[in-house]
Amino acid sequence: MSPGDGGMTPIDRVRPFDRALLGLEPHPYDPNALSFVVVPCLCRVDGRFYGGAALAAALTASEAATGREALWSSTQLVAVADLGERIRIDVEHLAAGRTADQVQVRGTIGDRVIFNAVGGAATPTPTGMHGAGQMMPRVPPPEDCDPWGASREMVADQARELSRPVVGHHLVCEHRDAPLLDLEAQRPGRMTVWTRFTGELQAAFPHMTPAGLGFVADLVPLAVSQACGVNGAGTSLDNSLRIGEPVDSEWVLLDVDAHVAVGGFGHGHVYVWSPDGRMLATGTQSARLFSLEDFMRKQSAAPPMGA
Amino acid sequence: MSPGDGGMTPIDRVRPFDRALLGLEPHPYDPNALSFVVVPCLCRVDGRFYGGAALAAALTASEAATGREALWSSTQLVAVADLGERIRIDVEHLAAGRTADQVQVRGTIGDRVIFNAVGGAATPTPTGMHGAGQMMPRVPPPEDCDPWGASREMVADQARELSRPVVGHHLVCEHRDAPLLDLEAQRPGRMTVWTRFTGELQAAFPHMTPAGLGFVADLVPLAVSQACGVNGAGTSLDNSLRIGEPVDSEWVLLDVDAHVAVGGFGHGHVYVWSPDGRMLATGTQSARLFSLEDFMRKQSAAPPMGA
Repeated sequence: MSPGDGGMTPIDRVRPFDRALLGLEPHPYDPNALSFVVVPCLCRVDGRFYGGAALAAALTASEAATGREALWSSTQLVAVADLGERIRIDVEHLAAGRTADQVQVRGTIGDRVIFNAVGGAATPTPTGMHGAGQMMPRVPPPEDCDPWGASREMVADQARELSRPVVGHHLVCEHRDAPLLDLEAQRPGRMTVWTRFTGELQAAFPHMTPAGLGFVADLVPLAVSQACGVNGAGTSLDNSLRIGEPVDSEWVLLDVDAHVAVGGFGHGHVYVWSPDGRMLATGTQSARLFSLEDFMRKQSAAPPMGA
Repeated sequence: MSPGDGGMTPIDRVRPFDRALLGLEPHPYDPNALSFVVVPCLCRVDGRFYGGAALAAALTASEAATGREALWSSTQLVAVADLGERIRIDVEHLAAGRTADQVQVRGTIGDRVIFNAVGGAATPTPTGMHGAGQMMPRVPPPEDCDPWGASREMVADQARELSRPVVGHHLVCEHRDAPLLDLEAQRPGRMTVWTRFTGELQAAFPHMTPAGLGFVADLVPLAVSQACGVNGAGTSLDNSLRIGEPVDSEWVLLDVDAHVAVGGFGHGHVYVWSPDGRMLATGTQSARLFSLEDFMRKQSAAPPMGA
């Protein structure tokens, strides 16, 4: 820490929402490093650490290390981590500029690298350039949309059936199917879904954070499989996010689209919108893709949801 | 190197095109590291090391280290490098899977980190998922399009006027303005430009490589400025690329679009198409944006082109 910090450690600069979502705390042996335990809501439904949580951790760690707002992160997913393991987060502050800093963020368990991120944080200039090149698609408001994907209740039922612990990020967020109202915008690989945090998080905090967006925005592999005409998903190789307008809403729209897939590896993007049409963030992901049929045959387990 | 490599070092696995473009060679003191010198064609027109060259170096280094095809790279631009300096490239092989590897690639000059990349390389599975979620926009063929941006001749003229060395990636590639034929697709921040390599590179190699795409695809900051209604450019914070269909054409179409800009920092994407409509790659970038008016006032120098 620099002398001007008045003895602040990184945990003091973590947003309360992010601290609650990820269970962030100082590392037990090093107060200058953040750490967290892989609890059930930070897992995919197969019980492995969830890529969206890695991206969220990288974004919040970049803010804690720099004192600026997260601007972008490309978070490479290197190895699995299991329920109950503690991940240590270290930040290498590569460049400190007048308005933006560049960092590398690594999550490790002992000698194992779990995730590895490059990214940056910035202090916006009030007179700096402002604008958008995209328009939010027209969809019904979340109140008029049906539940989508796994719910907290479904995940609990599946876990009981398989005698497994109840795990999955669906424990803290919900999704709703938001059909595109412009029919010509509909095509395989385009998906629009409302999402928000639920339960105690929603009760305690009126809106998300950049890290929260990173947590919920992990749907690209599903969309890429759909564009290939396959009911499938994927193992993400990375979760990347670039932050736009200030994040100040409870619900956000995930507007997901496929790019291209070749030989079982594919890419796509997600645009994240506020209900009033501001572009909060844009994300991209690459993934190794598989059909759910193959997956079920191999694992006789619950399908991974966008993980 | 592993015993099965038969004494091969990374330079032996570099594609001839990439070796010629970047001037890659083994590091003088360590044959297991690649290195290259910042020569004029690897610079922006202001004489500083060009971000597209950093991305190209990261992509080719990931192939040389893994023996697989580059799949994606997010290359963070950390510090400037000047004409004549030698950049050393080191690869940390973070994960080696059955079909894909994850790497970190760092370019350094002594203790200075110049660029820092996370990414991966993969071996496509012939039976793996294949498809695309996007369509190439309709534009005239490159033969019918006018030159766009700085040419080799313009760069040379400017340099003479300012008594500076002739530098710029325009020394090895050319661009042509490819107007969108569908009028409803036109909007501020959407740019379509044909590009190809020129001179000795074009004569020696019939088509580009993934690294070559990374080199030419660096136009996002220009597009984001346009979406903000400003004649501007930007200092890239990163150049990121995800590879799709095999790269087998001389000309490629750069289909650039803005995402969002807030407080002087903005993001956007580029889709890279073959002339026959296959999606070769998709890229994203974040940048600190500035108007060319401000830039000229401060520097009385040639404007940076998409750098």
